[in-house]
Amino acid sequence: MSPTMVEHSGLDIMCLNKYCHSSSSSSSSEHDKKVFSKLKQSLSGDYPRKNAEILSGQYGTNVLLIGASLMLAIAHHGPAVKEEHLLSFVTCLMILQLIWMMWYILVRDRQKNSRTEKDVHATTCWIRGGLTLLALLSLIMDAFRIGYYVGYQSCVSAVLGVYPVIHATHTIAQVHFLWFHIKDVIKSFETFERFGVIHAVFTNLLLWCNGVMSEAEHFLNNHKRRLSALGYGNLTIVHSEPHCNCTTSTCSMFSSSLYYLYPFNIEYHIFVSAMLFVMWKNIGRTIDLSSNQKRMATKTQGLTLGPILGLLALASTIGILVVYITHVEESLRMRQSAISMFYIYGMVMLVFMCSASASGLLIYRADHMPLDTSKNPSRQLDTELLFGSSIGSWLMSWCSIVAVLGTNSSPPYRWTNLIYSLLIVLEKYIQNLFIIESLYRQQEDTESEDPELPAAPEIFSVTSSLAPPYNGIINRAYETPDRTCVTMENEQEESGEVYRCPRKPSEVPLPVGNKVVDPPNIKRQILKNIAVFLLMCNISLWILPAFGCRPQYDNGLEQETFGFSIWTTVLNFAIPLNLFYRMHSVASLFEVFRRV
Amino acid sequence: MSPTMVEHSGLDIMCLNKYCHSSSSSSSSEHDKKVFSKLKQSLSGDYPRKNAEILSGQYGTNVLLIGASLMLAIAHHGPAVKEEHLLSFVTCLMILQLIWMMWYILVRDRQKNSRTEKDVHATTCWIRGGLTLLALLSLIMDAFRIGYYVGYQSCVSAVLGVYPVIHATHTIAQVHFLWFHIKDVIKSFETFERFGVIHAVFTNLLLWCNGVMSEAEHFLNNHKRRLSALGYGNLTIVHSEPHCNCTTSTCSMFSSSLYYLYPFNIEYHIFVSAMLFVMWKNIGRTIDLSSNQKRMATKTQGLTLGPILGLLALASTIGILVVYITHVEESLRMRQSAISMFYIYGMVMLVFMCSASASGLLIYRADHMPLDTSKNPSRQLDTELLFGSSIGSWLMSWCSIVAVLGTNSSPPYRWTNLIYSLLIVLEKYIQNLFIIESLYRQQEDTESEDPELPAAPEIFSVTSSLAPPYNGIINRAYETPDRTCVTMENEQEESGEVYRCPRKPSEVPLPVGNKVVDPPNIKRQILKNIAVFLLMCNISLWILPAFGCRPQYDNGLEQETFGFSIWTTVLNFAIPLNLFYRMHSVASLFEVFRRV
Repeated sequence: MSPTMVEHSGLDIMCLNKYCHSSSSSSSSEHDKKVFSKLKQSLSGDYPRKNAEILSGQYGTNVLLIGASLMLAIAHHGPAVKEEHLLSFVTCLMILQLIWMMWYILVRDRQKNSRTEKDVHATTCWIRGGLTLLALLSLIMDAFRIGYYVGYQSCVSAVLGVYPVIHATHTIAQVHFLWFHIKDVIKSFETFERFGVIHAVFTNLLLWCNGVMSEAEHFLNNHKRRLSALGYGNLTIVHSEPHCNCTTSTCSMFSSSLYYLYPFNIEYHIFVSAMLFVMWKNIGRTIDLSSNQKRMATKTQGLTLGPILGLLALASTIGILVVYITHVEESLRMRQSAISMFYIYGMVMLVFMCSASASGLLIYRADHMPLDTSKNPSRQLDTELLFGSSIGSWLMSWCSIVAVLGTNSSPPYRWTNLIYSLLIVLEKYIQNLFIIESLYRQQEDTESEDPELPAAPEIFSVTSSLAPPYNGIINRAYETPDRTCVTMENEQEESGEVYRCPRKPSEVPLPVGNKVVDPPNIKRQILKNIAVFLLMCNISLWILPAFGCRPQYDNGLEQETFGFSIWTTVLNFAIPLNLFYRMHSVASLFEVFRRV
Repeated sequence: MSPTMVEHSGLDIMCLNKYCHSSSSSSSSEHDKKVFSKLKQSLSGDYPRKNAEILSGQYGTNVLLIGASLMLAIAHHGPAVKEEHLLSFVTCLMILQLIWMMWYILVRDRQKNSRTEKDVHATTCWIRGGLTLLALLSLIMDAFRIGYYVGYQSCVSAVLGVYPVIHATHTIAQVHFLWFHIKDVIKSFETFERFGVIHAVFTNLLLWCNGVMSEAEHFLNNHKRRLSALGYGNLTIVHSEPHCNCTTSTCSMFSSSLYYLYPFNIEYHIFVSAMLFVMWKNIGRTIDLSSNQKRMATKTQGLTLGPILGLLALASTIGILVVYITHVEESLRMRQSAISMFYIYGMVMLVFMCSASASGLLIYRADHMPLDTSKNPSRQLDTELLFGSSIGSWLMSWCSIVAVLGTNSSPPYRWTNLIYSLLIVLEKYIQNLFIIESLYRQQEDTESEDPELPAAPEIFSVTSSLAPPYNGIINRAYETPDRTCVTMENEQEESGEVYRCPRKPSEVPLPVGNKVVDPPNIKRQILKNIAVFLLMCNISLWILPAFGCRPQYDNGLEQETFGFSIWTTVLNFAIPLNLFYRMHSVASLFEVFRRV
């Protein structure tokens, strides 16, 4: 419940009071005037929160949909809509966002004396650091784009030159915003700021879509080229090369390097938009201070098996990537053996990942602890994104399974593909459970001196905003402390809440020694190892499709069952989601690693 | 916070206590045994709520995705996957759901002595009545399907006969379930029931997808037939007619009537799945009893303009539908005039709808009232569905706008198409705001005798689940009632909550007369008229595409810009969503009509 709401209801009652008196005593013209002034006042007043959310959310969605419809028109390669149109639209959006960010920063700077509330859960240093790295790679990409434009200057639209300049400015400004303002809880000009933030969210989402589209087209052209080379022929490859010669010697280098930088640019935009979305969710929120505490520092003792296995996975992944990319371009037999190799490697990885996640879940089952249900938009979004982005990969896997079961041809990798796809479904299923449970479990406070009551502060925190703190004190004046405790516990249980009485020191058995703290620590060390291992495995599984290892294009089984156009549509939808899933689970697993 | 959680934390502390003692006194083998039995016990115990949600949600999503991949394979018309495969899969799912529903009903019947909690917000008589009607039409459809199967018995798969029989049984059982159990708040076997309910949700969603696919294919074939007739030629129409002659004389009648019943069947399944989803959300929830009250009866006085205008819209719609369908099959000129007529009619409708929604919003702005923020999964879902299903239609409109602006050809309906599309975007934007604000506004209690305290029960309801009810009683034993009130208010205000003390009758000023209730009644009457008008307009806009008036297929503008395959993909995604949007807003507007 926000303070605004309370104010509104107060206002409402006042108005009604006035109204009662006036209607019984005054004339109707005066009454009309009053109604009019009331109307005017209400229209200029703050909009209720739910409506402001819908209002701005709908605006953002429509901005994205305009971009999406332009992209669909471009995908047709018709004469009407060209890439320039989309780029100018995106450039306008970025300029708008720049203006808003400038305005926001200026306003904040002038209000410096009044402290802004911060939501510490909104992001971590690690994520911001990672994003800064991704932003740097994006800047390099912009530099390449500018270079490319300079080379072809005479025959390409000026938009192709303006776009990278604005994009670079946008990237720098946005990184500054991320470092200094992303945690802000906005409480002034709420409705206007909502529009600003959601505009930023959807501008980044559109930039993501744009990157995904460019990348998908690149892969599709590669795929068509391979099919033509294998004699399937008859597929038109659309080249978007300009119609003049490059004036510098580096144009082809620029355009081919771009595709190695795309994956980073894509991840950058989707992550920023997720973080801005959390900021949007936080607008006008009343932060519960008790749960808004800094986390403890990360401890790295006992980390051996996880990192070693993870590095092993990472190294073998890079090997597989190189072998796959070189082999898949060659003869049919080499191609088939490369695909088989990929599936076998994938199966080994996934079996390990499944068992790691499953043992993590088993540890949690053996160690009951209530979940932390306090409000936390960032965590909520993490959960939904994990779940939502799994859908792409699940759809792809089920399609593969249907294709394997339905096909008549029998390449050597038919059954390994089936098992691999089943494992992909299972692995995401278990990993999601593990990550979400880890994020929702209450953090144990290792600094606690009292091993008897490790759960007490957490139980309290769940309900601390609900439990009237004066209660005990008032009662205690009339009853003995012990009796109070009993009554309170009974009361709270009936109303569905529990909190513990502070025990008297004499009742608490003294800690027997350091030994008793060990076992949870062993559990925690295992969990930390699992998290690190899963993190590195997810990086591996991100690297493979991001840099061109996509057997779903190459194995031909699914294409036979679903046809070229349906299957490429599925892949164009599923692969970007899958890439995002892997990156997002890396970030979540890092969070898990720091929490356990 | 669920009671389960409380139990867990209790258990946890117990375990820890035991553990402390044992580790200091007993041998390590005994300790191992204990750990093992603890593990076993914990594994068999109840799963935390959040995880159970994710666990079952992921299961349901995967069931849907298996179905989706089968459908994609069928859409390719390849040799591997046939419609029989999908139908047998869906039949299995329905049988599973039947078994679960039977089990559920049996268990409830045996527990009859212990009252089950109900969530009165979950659904209304009106919606259930409407669904029963839709279910009856679905049953007729099943009868037609059985008749069709009997005719072609000799050459079609037996699955085509089994499917309608199971579907009919499923429909009857499900309607029974809707009437007697949909409001239940499940508190026993939570994890298992979660799987049952989510299975039902996704089975219905899959049946919806299946219906949508059949309908889309029907329209696509119609469209291709028309294009061929106009000389565009070269499009293969896939006929799924069986390879033998019908033994009865009614086969063609059955198969052509099916397409008029599809829209109802489709709406039935999506609505049922939304209601079951609310039931799933309610599992294990603690219902706030104070906000769980029956609504007042609907009053219909002062309803004139809205219904009259609405009926006018409905009548003209049916006229337009008939003219459109007959004209669009004829010469190019007739076709173009039919399309122009549709757009002009649509513009008039949408302008009226926009102004109605906008005036509704203005009335709300003039009449401040805090929004009701109490937890209500049903309303939450309504909001999200309205918002989500608008996306389809918005995408379609923006694509039209891009096509109109980008095209070189200039048919007579070019600019009317542009304005129509812009109005569609605007209308959904404003209508969503109006409906959502109406649903979230607190209901004024007209039966209240006390005009001074209109907001009091609402303020109470926001926090009533948080305020410990025993408090006052205990305190009152020691203090005078008046002093208790003061302390309580202070306490609650400091902990961020507010609730009011029951005033003594002597303190409450007497109502001044009936006159004071009049003005809000005028507002309310206007709102009621708006709601009825919008409701009928939405029915009109549902009827048109549902029964074949789809100018997006016929006008050719978008197809030119986006190409045949991209544009039909967009339509296949957007039109079903749009149909659902219209039906869903009808249901929501009815709810609005009853609330204001």
